[in-house]
Amino acid sequence: MTVSGGGDEGEKQRYTHQMPGPLADITVIDLSRVLAGPYATMVLADLGARVIKVERPDGGDDARAYGPFIKGHSAYFASINRGKQSIALDLKSADDRVIFEALLARGDVLIDNYRPGVMARLGYGWEALAARYPRLIHAATSGFGQTGPDSQKAAYDMVVQAMGGIMSVTGHPGGPPTRVGTSVGDITAGLFTVIGIMAALHDRDRTGKGQFVDVAMLDGQIAILENAIARYAATGESPGPLGARHPSITPFAAYQCADAPIVIAAGNDQLFTALCTALGLPTDDPRFADNNARTTHAEALAAVLEGVLLTQPVAHWLPKLEAAGVPCGPLNNIGQALANPQVQARNMVVHTSLPDGTPLIAAGNPIKLSAHADPATRAPAPELDGDRATILKELGL
Amino acid sequence: MTVSGGGDEGEKQRYTHQMPGPLADITVIDLSRVLAGPYATMVLADLGARVIKVERPDGGDDARAYGPFIKGHSAYFASINRGKQSIALDLKSADDRVIFEALLARGDVLIDNYRPGVMARLGYGWEALAARYPRLIHAATSGFGQTGPDSQKAAYDMVVQAMGGIMSVTGHPGGPPTRVGTSVGDITAGLFTVIGIMAALHDRDRTGKGQFVDVAMLDGQIAILENAIARYAATGESPGPLGARHPSITPFAAYQCADAPIVIAAGNDQLFTALCTALGLPTDDPRFADNNARTTHAEALAAVLEGVLLTQPVAHWLPKLEAAGVPCGPLNNIGQALANPQVQARNMVVHTSLPDGTPLIAAGNPIKLSAHADPATRAPAPELDGDRATILKELGL
Repeated sequence: MTVSGGGDEGEKQRYTHQMPGPLADITVIDLSRVLAGPYATMVLADLGARVIKVERPDGGDDARAYGPFIKGHSAYFASINRGKQSIALDLKSADDRVIFEALLARGDVLIDNYRPGVMARLGYGWEALAARYPRLIHAATSGFGQTGPDSQKAAYDMVVQAMGGIMSVTGHPGGPPTRVGTSVGDITAGLFTVIGIMAALHDRDRTGKGQFVDVAMLDGQIAILENAIARYAATGESPGPLGARHPSITPFAAYQCADAPIVIAAGNDQLFTALCTALGLPTDDPRFADNNARTTHAEALAAVLEGVLLTQPVAHWLPKLEAAGVPCGPLNNIGQALANPQVQARNMVVHTSLPDGTPLIAAGNPIKLSAHADPATRAPAPELDGDRATILKELGL
Repeated sequence: MTVSGGGDEGEKQRYTHQMPGPLADITVIDLSRVLAGPYATMVLADLGARVIKVERPDGGDDARAYGPFIKGHSAYFASINRGKQSIALDLKSADDRVIFEALLARGDVLIDNYRPGVMARLGYGWEALAARYPRLIHAATSGFGQTGPDSQKAAYDMVVQAMGGIMSVTGHPGGPPTRVGTSVGDITAGLFTVIGIMAALHDRDRTGKGQFVDVAMLDGQIAILENAIARYAATGESPGPLGARHPSITPFAAYQCADAPIVIAAGNDQLFTALCTALGLPTDDPRFADNNARTTHAEALAAVLEGVLLTQPVAHWLPKLEAAGVPCGPLNNIGQALANPQVQARNMVVHTSLPDGTPLIAAGNPIKLSAHADPATRAPAPELDGDRATILKELGL
């Protein structure tokens, strides 16, 4: 059993709204705002960790002011911060610093996404924290990281999507710049931050000591370029956007049917043969003999496939291709994606609420563990400073 | 110190090519192919875990055949599988099953991305594994997950990008379907798989028991929709693609300068005022009074901003906006992204090689840990079955 961090080893309070899970022994003190950090602590909370948001008194997390709103509450904030607690503290106030330090003494993990240097100016730089709270893990998620010439620059998701290269391979050839439609800059950094925290917890179980985890949003974007870096490494040329097809696997794209597009991903020769047979096409065209030939002749292949697909609607082709074992699917909008019986069966749409009880749906936890339940509900996100009395009582302050 | 799994508790061999890191005590037996699983084990290897790829004898990992190629070697395979070992085993052969089971007895984590049911048909379903190797953690990454009506269907990245909804919010209004230009379906599942494995390791440190980790690529896509789900929840309408701007933060988009676009992300009123001042624009236009007003008038605001930006090139505006503290950046292609001094300073471009020694660059590890080094090199990816003799000797077989 992992003991709690720092000075106070007393029994931790358990809250009924806390999720069951493997991190039930972990308390996270969360200074982070908007998305990368709060996404990381959402994942930790979904795995059972207790997350205490420490917010600034004048308005709290910026995301509380981001739309869309339901009855004056940010649905965006409510979904990412479900099941967390909140206390408002001014880290420049002596009284509030006493409370914050009592939290650090009990916490296992501190997370912030200030610009590098802010924590040190508050007196909470890593060396000071490590000396005082030797078991504490401090994860800092920033735009550009704690080191390097740009470390002091500000970044948001869009900036790192642009600078990290993912926008250069997303979109259509010759078309306008295209942002990935969700904040992959923040979310990727959030996921790497969780992995770093978990790695540090594993280390702490052996060494007894915490450590500092430094994750940059820009670094996370480089880390997910995969194929694009390999192509650049092999050719010395930067690949461009390819619309809706894969750069080196064919057919692996969106194709037009009579009413709408479908995607078909036939990643090897067997699947390609199955696809041709299902569509009544010849299987011996030399232009399409193997994956590399198909990639070279991707446009010709699209014309051949669409020559057949355009004769019938999506509803005709999907069951036919599925029966042939060909990976395929519809292009779902958000409502369709969430209504998919498979997504529902996997408990990927969970139920939470706004502070006034108004029901709200949110994305579930994609990590299904055999030793833990996967609840279909989440406690609501906290109101600003909503858990102050509970937390102060617990701290004996 | 975590002991090794299952039956054999003997001292593990350490290999010089293994990375330093918090997972140096962990051995991963990796049956996975192509991307989601291999990406997960790349992250684990970068954190110090020993990863043994168990490949099928006839060609091994499918990704060995995916371009681009350098001197006949897949650069794609080489980058994702750097620093791993390989043994080729036919899991239907009695002799090879003895070897595989000896690996399971020593391993901490087994990972596969077969379709659900394949492992059970091989005699390695979770109940059988848990009975024989009680400390073993088994992570299975699949297209649709181990449960639900679609669990037996095949999926590739493109299918889950389409079905999960991210393609419906990526691209331009009225434009053709647009795939995110890297395999976020696989990579996201890989990252959630790593988190699940780490959570199970944390649990094992307390309970002594392994568990089964079930991650679906489709579930991972739902989990990263964030804002899009919140908008759907608030309005009941599925949001569409918005090109290169953020749905609810403005200005947060690509804007055209004289020579090329830049991105500007002014996420709050202070930053918007700083932007206007830097561009010589008035700061009191009532259409742009706060973030919600700016989002309502996003097109009018873009016209006002571009009226100024179009008069000068990107090189003029970037330093000016940076000096004003406005988050902004260039739209880098892959070569530019990797050449960025910040990316270089963060050791995000590491050096590995093909099996013949040809140098190859690859993405580095975005998780920077204070207690561990962050090497600039990685051992090459293994040749198929290239570590057989070493592994058999170690197993005493």
